[in-house]
Amino acid sequence: MARTYLDTGRPIVALATAPGRSALAVIRTSGEKAVERCARCFFPSNALISAGGYTMVHGYLVDPESGERVDEVVAAVFRGPKSFTGEDSVEFSCHGSAAVASRALAALEGAGFAPALPGEFSFRAFINGKTDLVEAEAVNELASARCDTAREDALLRLSGVLSSDFSALRREMLDLLSEMEVRLDYPIEEGESEGFDSEAPWIKRLAACEAHLENLSRSYIGGRLRQEGALVVVAGRPNAGKSSLFNLVVREERAIVSPEPGTTRDWLEAWIEIGGYAVRLVDTAGLRRAEEGIEAEGVRRSMDLSGRADIIIYLVDGRVGLSIEDIDFIDRHPAALKLWNKIDAADCQPVPSGWLGLSAKKGDRLELLESAIRFLLSESSGEAASKESSIRIASSRQKTLVDQCLEAIRGAKAGVDSKAPLDVTTLDIREAADFLGEITGEIAGEEVFDRIFGSFCLGK
Amino acid sequence: MARTYLDTGRPIVALATAPGRSALAVIRTSGEKAVERCARCFFPSNALISAGGYTMVHGYLVDPESGERVDEVVAAVFRGPKSFTGEDSVEFSCHGSAAVASRALAALEGAGFAPALPGEFSFRAFINGKTDLVEAEAVNELASARCDTAREDALLRLSGVLSSDFSALRREMLDLLSEMEVRLDYPIEEGESEGFDSEAPWIKRLAACEAHLENLSRSYIGGRLRQEGALVVVAGRPNAGKSSLFNLVVREERAIVSPEPGTTRDWLEAWIEIGGYAVRLVDTAGLRRAEEGIEAEGVRRSMDLSGRADIIIYLVDGRVGLSIEDIDFIDRHPAALKLWNKIDAADCQPVPSGWLGLSAKKGDRLELLESAIRFLLSESSGEAASKESSIRIASSRQKTLVDQCLEAIRGAKAGVDSKAPLDVTTLDIREAADFLGEITGEIAGEEVFDRIFGSFCLGK
Repeated sequence: MARTYLDTGRPIVALATAPGRSALAVIRTSGEKAVERCARCFFPSNALISAGGYTMVHGYLVDPESGERVDEVVAAVFRGPKSFTGEDSVEFSCHGSAAVASRALAALEGAGFAPALPGEFSFRAFINGKTDLVEAEAVNELASARCDTAREDALLRLSGVLSSDFSALRREMLDLLSEMEVRLDYPIEEGESEGFDSEAPWIKRLAACEAHLENLSRSYIGGRLRQEGALVVVAGRPNAGKSSLFNLVVREERAIVSPEPGTTRDWLEAWIEIGGYAVRLVDTAGLRRAEEGIEAEGVRRSMDLSGRADIIIYLVDGRVGLSIEDIDFIDRHPAALKLWNKIDAADCQPVPSGWLGLSAKKGDRLELLESAIRFLLSESSGEAASKESSIRIASSRQKTLVDQCLEAIRGAKAGVDSKAPLDVTTLDIREAADFLGEITGEIAGEEVFDRIFGSFCLGK
Repeated sequence: MARTYLDTGRPIVALATAPGRSALAVIRTSGEKAVERCARCFFPSNALISAGGYTMVHGYLVDPESGERVDEVVAAVFRGPKSFTGEDSVEFSCHGSAAVASRALAALEGAGFAPALPGEFSFRAFINGKTDLVEAEAVNELASARCDTAREDALLRLSGVLSSDFSALRREMLDLLSEMEVRLDYPIEEGESEGFDSEAPWIKRLAACEAHLENLSRSYIGGRLRQEGALVVVAGRPNAGKSSLFNLVVREERAIVSPEPGTTRDWLEAWIEIGGYAVRLVDTAGLRRAEEGIEAEGVRRSMDLSGRADIIIYLVDGRVGLSIEDIDFIDRHPAALKLWNKIDAADCQPVPSGWLGLSAKKGDRLELLESAIRFLLSESSGEAASKESSIRIASSRQKTLVDQCLEAIRGAKAGVDSKAPLDVTTLDIREAADFLGEITGEIAGEEVFDRIFGSFCLGK
């Protein structure tokens, strides 16, 4: 039967660094008696057993069956609860090759370690009270940060600021709840119940929570854009100059990943950084193939891509001017950034209003395009609108729960307005508090763990 | 001006793990006052400064200019000479993302660390007497080990066994040299000079060195085959069943790397493990295109590949039988492993002698093919012939120097046979000793360092 996260009895092992030829690779272990078990695969084993927490031992990783040396390593010892997982843990710093890593993992499995599930080290940190779910997600977000703003956001969440926010909101909700329950037990006999007064202090406190949660909910667009990066699609008819523009932008900006064909080879894409955002720039040159009557599937995907784009850059050949297809595309994508290309050509038609003229070939006026992209990104991320807080949520799980919590709060407020019985309103507030508890993991079930930790990378 | 390896004054920094999204990434630093410099990028900095060797400190990597937190890390402190490089060294265990790594490297460069050259950590280990050149090369060989036999070989070389071999040979040579020099100073007056007696003890000792070096020189073929893997090419006419066989073998054996198109897309290849050897199995289906009259370049490359192959598997469609092209190919590649395919078909012609009959489609008799490949590999690696030693050389640099040393020894012996003056013979032996000194680095110049360490990966 497959192991689950809740099966925390067995010690676990995994490669914690990226695979590939490198100077070092780190193999991480954690669990009950992890140090003693590791000592069965280590020479000199006594040195490992007697090592204190936060100390290292130089030696050899050996196969526990054959006694054969696997690699010369440095073993880093952590003693629970002062470790990432809260359990005893040993991290082996090995030579970085696939052959060494697979042999080392086999040796440790021979000593009783189970191959870790994705995110299982983080799960143990959670279950042992070292982190909450928001911080655990932040660890994963930090590892997948593509640009510096994403790193900054995730580190802030990892530090616990966002968790404190959620916990404080939940405490406030539970406070309100107990006050209301007192009121239910000892109802005011005379006149109008204080509970139904929309000017009552507790209604104001609920409204403050609502406002705070609305800010967090809004922060998700920017948080996601920073975390996952923006999809910027270069579209236009054949020969509008899409590939020239793509190459120009990739060459001028700092490329994070070199250009590569899309998975289906219908488009070319590159990750670059613009205005602090990771941008996945896609050249939909595949659209050209429509003319050739082949690869209809590729064209469909390029269209899909335009539909999902955060920004569409639409190019027109200024010497040819607007065609019916161009006008049709712009009508369907009014937010597209419209570029009038080839303005260096003698026969280029005048740039229409609302269009940005440039020459993708000459690399002319690229800084204007860049500023436009920066502006559109900061606008769609809500940055321009709200400067008040630097805490953003980037997890769709958190966003869903925040919105469910907001709905429950609004239900409670509507109940007050319609003078519903107080005990119905308390149910709404109880629900809101529970949603907040699910965010941090104060309330959470096994299927939640699978969903959260299953998306983590191995060894985390 | 570009820094060179010999510029050991500046402390250095590099990412030591493979790039990519992962749980952990390790950033390695080394050099004078490395701990104090790292403390400028670390919070709490005093904890780092006061940390002893082989201990770790939990904290934050911070930007030394802005004070901004870059990542939550564990810093491992090594105090020279008890460190990999022999210098003071700090290794930061960070969250594994490109954004974190680049920001962390920038922070450490801000504190005065220079980006390390490839292999510069290993070079410092060498220059500080922690390893010799043979061991330094073994570190690199260990990191690029594709299969377990390669790992085993490299670890043995890293342990210093091969280095001791070379050092002992050199000492013996220098011993002989000093004895001969004594003889030159006090020549035997009467009768035949003892130096010219081919039965003299020193000639026997020289012959013993020669025999040992010949063994090492021979071990290179096997060492290289284990280290770099074997190139096995599947050839044959169109429809002989090359791709079926390729897919069958890849599916049945343990694939190290999943199949992928060759760089030029003219062939498909996969790394698999057969008989302890990493095997790069190549399906030259690209040859088929010759018929279509296109991609002549691709066909030329496939031919080149057959020329360089350690093993060629040549397939014939047993229902069609031998064509003139088949006979021509076999004539030009007599060592090819000849397979008579499609023996499951009712109209398959009888298997000629010297051919192995199988059905690539049914997966029939694959174990015979595997055994044949195992045998050919162990034969060409010289394994079958010499079982006496498990020490092999895998570096072409070492092989060249061993062969040059052998040539000098043979020169000395020829001198003795032709009764050349003893002082000419001593020159040959001096040269032989120098070649051995170059192997371990007891004698080596800057251009040697560039050549050796320049091929290492970064952070090593």
